[in-house]
Amino acid sequence: MEAKVSIIMGSTSDLSVMEEAAKVLNDLQIPFELNALSAHRTPEEVEKFAKSASERGLKVIIAGAGMAAHLPGVIASMTNIPVIGVPINATLEGWDSLLSIVQMPPGIPVATVGINGARNAGILAAQMLALSDKELQAKLNKFKESLKEKVKKANKELEDIKFDYKV
Amino acid sequence: MEAKVSIIMGSTSDLSVMEEAAKVLNDLQIPFELNALSAHRTPEEVEKFAKSASERGLKVIIAGAGMAAHLPGVIASMTNIPVIGVPINATLEGWDSLLSIVQMPPGIPVATVGINGARNAGILAAQMLALSDKELQAKLNKFKESLKEKVKKANKELEDIKFDYKV
Amino acid sequence: MEAKVSIIMGSTSDLSVMEEAAKVLNDLQIPFELNALSAHRTPEEVEKFAKSASERGLKVIIAGAGMAAHLPGVIASMTNIPVIGVPINATLEGWDSLLSIVQMPPGIPVATVGINGARNAGILAAQMLALSDKELQAKLNKFKESLKEKVKKANKELEDIKFDYKV
Amino acid sequence: MEAKVSIIMGSTSDLSVMEEAAKVLNDLQIPFELNALSAHRTPEEVEKFAKSASERGLKVIIAGAGMAAHLPGVIASMTNIPVIGVPINATLEGWDSLLSIVQMPPGIPVATVGINGARNAGILAAQMLALSDKELQAKLNKFKESLKEKVKKANKELEDIKFDYKV
Amino acid sequence: MEAKVSIIMGSTSDLSVMEEAAKVLNDLQIPFELNALSAHRTPEEVEKFAKSASERGLKVIIAGAGMAAHLPGVIASMTNIPVIGVPINATLEGWDSLLSIVQMPPGIPVATVGINGARNAGILAAQMLALSDKELQAKLNKFKESLKEKVKKANKELEDIKFDYKV
Amino acid sequence: MEAKVSIIMGSTSDLSVMEEAAKVLNDLQIPFELNALSAHRTPEEVEKFAKSASERGLKVIIAGAGMAAHLPGVIASMTNIPVIGVPINATLEGWDSLLSIVQMPPGIPVATVGINGARNAGILAAQMLALSDKELQAKLNKFKESLKEKVKKANKELEDIKFDYKV
Amino acid sequence: MEAKVSIIMGSTSDLSVMEEAAKVLNDLQIPFELNALSAHRTPEEVEKFAKSASERGLKVIIAGAGMAAHLPGVIASMTNIPVIGVPINATLEGWDSLLSIVQMPPGIPVATVGINGARNAGILAAQMLALSDKELQAKLNKFKESLKEKVKKANKELEDIKFDYKV
Amino acid sequence: MEAKVSIIMGSTSDLSVMEEAAKVLNDLQIPFELNALSAHRTPEEVEKFAKSASERGLKVIIAGAGMAAHLPGVIASMTNIPVIGVPINATLEGWDSLLSIVQMPPGIPVATVGINGARNAGILAAQMLALSDKELQAKLNKFKESLKEKVKKANKELEDIKFDYKV
Repeated sequence: MEAKVSIIMGSTSDLSVMEEAAKVLNDLQIPFELNALSAHRTPEEVEKFAKSASERGLKVIIAGAGMAAHLPGVIASMTNIPVIGVPINATLEGWDSLLSIVQMPPGIPVATVGINGARNAGILAAQMLALSDKELQAKLNKFKESLKEKVKKANKELEDIKFDYKV
Repeated sequence: MEAKVSIIMGSTSDLSVMEEAAKVLNDLQIPFELNALSAHRTPEEVEKFAKSASERGLKVIIAGAGMAAHLPGVIASMTNIPVIGVPINATLEGWDSLLSIVQMPPGIPVATVGINGARNAGILAAQMLALSDKELQAKLNKFKESLKEKVKKANKELEDIKFDYKV
Repeated sequence: MEAKVSIIMGSTSDLSVMEEAAKVLNDLQIPFELNALSAHRTPEEVEKFAKSASERGLKVIIAGAGMAAHLPGVIASMTNIPVIGVPINATLEGWDSLLSIVQMPPGIPVATVGINGARNAGILAAQMLALSDKELQAKLNKFKESLKEKVKKANKELEDIKFDYKV
Repeated sequence: MEAKVSIIMGSTSDLSVMEEAAKVLNDLQIPFELNALSAHRTPEEVEKFAKSASERGLKVIIAGAGMAAHLPGVIASMTNIPVIGVPINATLEGWDSLLSIVQMPPGIPVATVGINGARNAGILAAQMLALSDKELQAKLNKFKESLKEKVKKANKELEDIKFDYKV
Repeated sequence: MEAKVSIIMGSTSDLSVMEEAAKVLNDLQIPFELNALSAHRTPEEVEKFAKSASERGLKVIIAGAGMAAHLPGVIASMTNIPVIGVPINATLEGWDSLLSIVQMPPGIPVATVGINGARNAGILAAQMLALSDKELQAKLNKFKESLKEKVKKANKELEDIKFDYKV
Repeated sequence: MEAKVSIIMGSTSDLSVMEEAAKVLNDLQIPFELNALSAHRTPEEVEKFAKSASERGLKVIIAGAGMAAHLPGVIASMTNIPVIGVPINATLEGWDSLLSIVQMPPGIPVATVGINGARNAGILAAQMLALSDKELQAKLNKFKESLKEKVKKANKELEDIKFDYKV
Repeated sequence: MEAKVSIIMGSTSDLSVMEEAAKVLNDLQIPFELNALSAHRTPEEVEKFAKSASERGLKVIIAGAGMAAHLPGVIASMTNIPVIGVPINATLEGWDSLLSIVQMPPGIPVATVGINGARNAGILAAQMLALSDKELQAKLNKFKESLKEKVKKANKELEDIKFDYKV
Repeated sequence: MEAKVSIIMGSTSDLSVMEEAAKVLNDLQIPFELNALSAHRTPEEVEKFAKSASERGLKVIIAGAGMAAHLPGVIASMTNIPVIGVPINATLEGWDSLLSIVQMPPGIPVATVGINGARNAGILAAQMLALSDKELQAKLNKFKESLKEKVKKANKELEDIKFDYKV
């Protein structure tokens, strides 16, 4: 099936972070692809990728990068498909990649999620696709319910804790 | 015409920042509404707003907030419509609002743009809507071309500058 | 016995930090409860909790959260019981949670303690309760004395250290 | 009438920030006093003040300070009355005073509000006093309602805005 | 005469900062050109520029940019001519542009100068050119001497200051 | 009279900050000199200055610098006279100069005061000189008393403030 | 022999950092004492210590503290003996303690060294004492020479390194 | 063969970072030398080194330093050979060394690379040398191609990943 979301990263070392996006899309049965691209090392490939994205049927691009993270912004400058940026903590706790991605100049937005927040990037992509897909919308609603269940389960566990320190 | 995008903010003092989103949507002829809501001052209104958003036909929500900026995240927790967060520089140059918006925990994404980046929020909303609207996609492509024109014009101006300082 | 303090957190993974508050309250024989609530995952539960807090006899709420930490502020917006916020270091050394909790806009205060400072949150809750509880005040005074003892003991240990490096 | 809250600051230059606390207390008809004290310039006065606070009938202390802001913490070390700290932005946008106040070591809490957040300090003090004062609790509830009115009024104003930029 | 250095920037609004580089080159009689290019708005132009730079006889590129500043890094990825990056303070005091430029990943260096440090960028470009230009080296040595003269003159001025405050 | 303290700075533009040190020394009748020296522009002069400092009878050196502030550390590396460093806020609110001065590697201390804290630098120099000068010690004690007087005066002023806002 | 330098810290857990100061003083045969004092836990002891310091023959005080580090500043407010502050990295990489110590308000200086820089604190204390002690001055000069020896030795080691990677 | 690049560092403990520069130069067959020099510990050696650099045939200097990192700037003040600065992460994640190196005042540039970015420093030095060395330019172009190969290989690996989590 044709990919609707493309998850791109600079190297396989980013995979441990970025696969969280893949997992979410997989769970929601949204077809996606994984690509290795680097704003600095394969600029021509990036351009080819970005310019053909719409024609190829891609709807959303998720791009992760660390350090001076230019990949999400560079792709966003070459397409009008929404680009979701994932700052990866490679150095400086991720401050550098966060600012390199979120502080885009007027005209070229990147939808930025938190540092190492690939899971949220996957959910955000699904939310965008669900704007014209009722079935997916229903899945997302169910997913949101499941988050509550976790908290309820936690509450159960907390009830059983005893604090008999020294009384 | 029914609003597709809702632009919300905590008070009219945020309007000077947030109206940039309104201007973009207006230029692209995307119907939108402006609302004053505060995560802290009108929590019930926020809940009512967020839960009826989808039924009311809203497709994207743009929420701006400053300081400990909870509005975008709180709304995102109550709907599956994509929420775009605009950190507003009210204190600490906007560091506080940026982190309060972008660093959302797993499960509840907020698509964050730069500090005071309401213009980019408007464009990002348009990109999401254009996923199922070819006409809008064409407008965005034209808009992207216009950005290049500005740079070309700048280039013209730079050509005429002379530097006859002391030779 | 009816709880006077409620300690709330987003998940059981925060327990290792937040139990320091529970220990202090337990030591001071102040009845408390532990709850799992999340501003983003169980907003309705949070609302129900906050609005019934006063009626249920709660006097102080201690809320811990990490990342874009909205829980303390959201609860504070729904009750007039004092809310003590504990920023939890989950990412960025806690800078994000600190700013998300302490920088509340005018009208909705959160009494913020240091990053991972749950122990201080427990003491602060006790100080508030002691305003109308002489016995508790006496316990706190005794507790303060015990802090001095620790320093005196440290002083003893330091006296015995020898520095015969190379003379 | 005997003061229940003491608002202290290092110099009259802090008054423009700290008077917001005084205004709130005045509006809520809570008796208070204003004092100039400095952790560094009048340590003996600080000690005398802190140690007699409880006997004098004070219930809450609000202390504002800028730069390496030691006043709130030093007072908190000498009394068991709750101390609310207000970081004042004198240098470094207030980063220095925020950290000097909020990051108290275990055992000596300071209830910290946002930078220049004296208004919130006043409200927090009122919330503490209201724990044993039903009338004050009612006033605070009314105050909370008034915050909503402001947002509603803002909403009215936003409805009237037109964006006829270029269509 | 053929330009040896190209000074590029995203818009004419950066000119007030970047012209300091132009002035230095002009003073040292090094032929240069000024260009408006944007990593995000004219990516094709950037590519064309970078790939033909060497053939056109350019020896050094000075690129200034603010916010999420991708221009210097993107150009550096497309040429082996040294690229000097000038972080421009447009937002966040320049923290965002500094990190977006200096923290380049391994393989693609950008020679970064200080925030708004275009003057130093011009001098650095001259130092690179002087590696194979003795005459220019002599000019730079003379320039370095002139810096000392300024300090000597300052010293003269300081000698005349009197401090007769209250003795 | 022979100078005991040397106040050095990189240019006369730093004088408005550094003259606060001069004023304190003048008030305490400690002989001092003012010098313009720059770690980067007159390295030989700096060396000559530092190495002859002790012989010339100097007891303390106060060095102010902004940006990448190397002057205090470089001087400290060339003499065993105590060097007091004053970070000057020229860029980045002074974060750069603070870290460039205070974070000296092991073996070469610089006694750092706060950003733009030249007045404290002057007092600190006086405290060092007073270690072997009883008369100066007495003056400093008197100076410390005068700080208290200011706070007492402030207290007087605060007593007269009325808050009749709306009761 | 009577101590000339007092090294104080809040608890024995700071000893691993602060003993570097003790080692330096020991090596230079400067009599010193170690004390446990806490600005927050033993304020009366701190006062007693600070006020008697001069009479007891102390010449310099070295105070280390972490988090909201008030100890050095509080002592400096009670004596005119020079106080050297050592920010200890307990939380936030030491940013909190650095700012809490170095950013002292006008009138009360603390001579701050780098984070965990106790060794430099010891050397700085020795430099102050050497102002009236020629023998100590000679020892410090010798110590400075020994720093150079280390670098020369390092240079030797570097000479022997071979880089035969793949040629 | 005579060294064209000198790699200098403060101690052998910096070697693990700085040897990345050496490796690149070695791979590109550019003659280089390794030196231990410290701005603070061997100022005379630094001066001798910097002033003879040009005569000795050095074309580029790469200087690495941590903490308050003065070495690159101090050398740059004494020569007109381009100086590349490598901030080393010794404390504060490298924030201190980055700012101490990159924020040089006008007149004395240091070409700064990222924190621990010695590999990029080596490449940048090669780019400068290649300005007058066609053979080296060819090697660099080949090197740039090899970066692309890595990304292509990564892409291959990503193609084989399966995500069969729970469908």
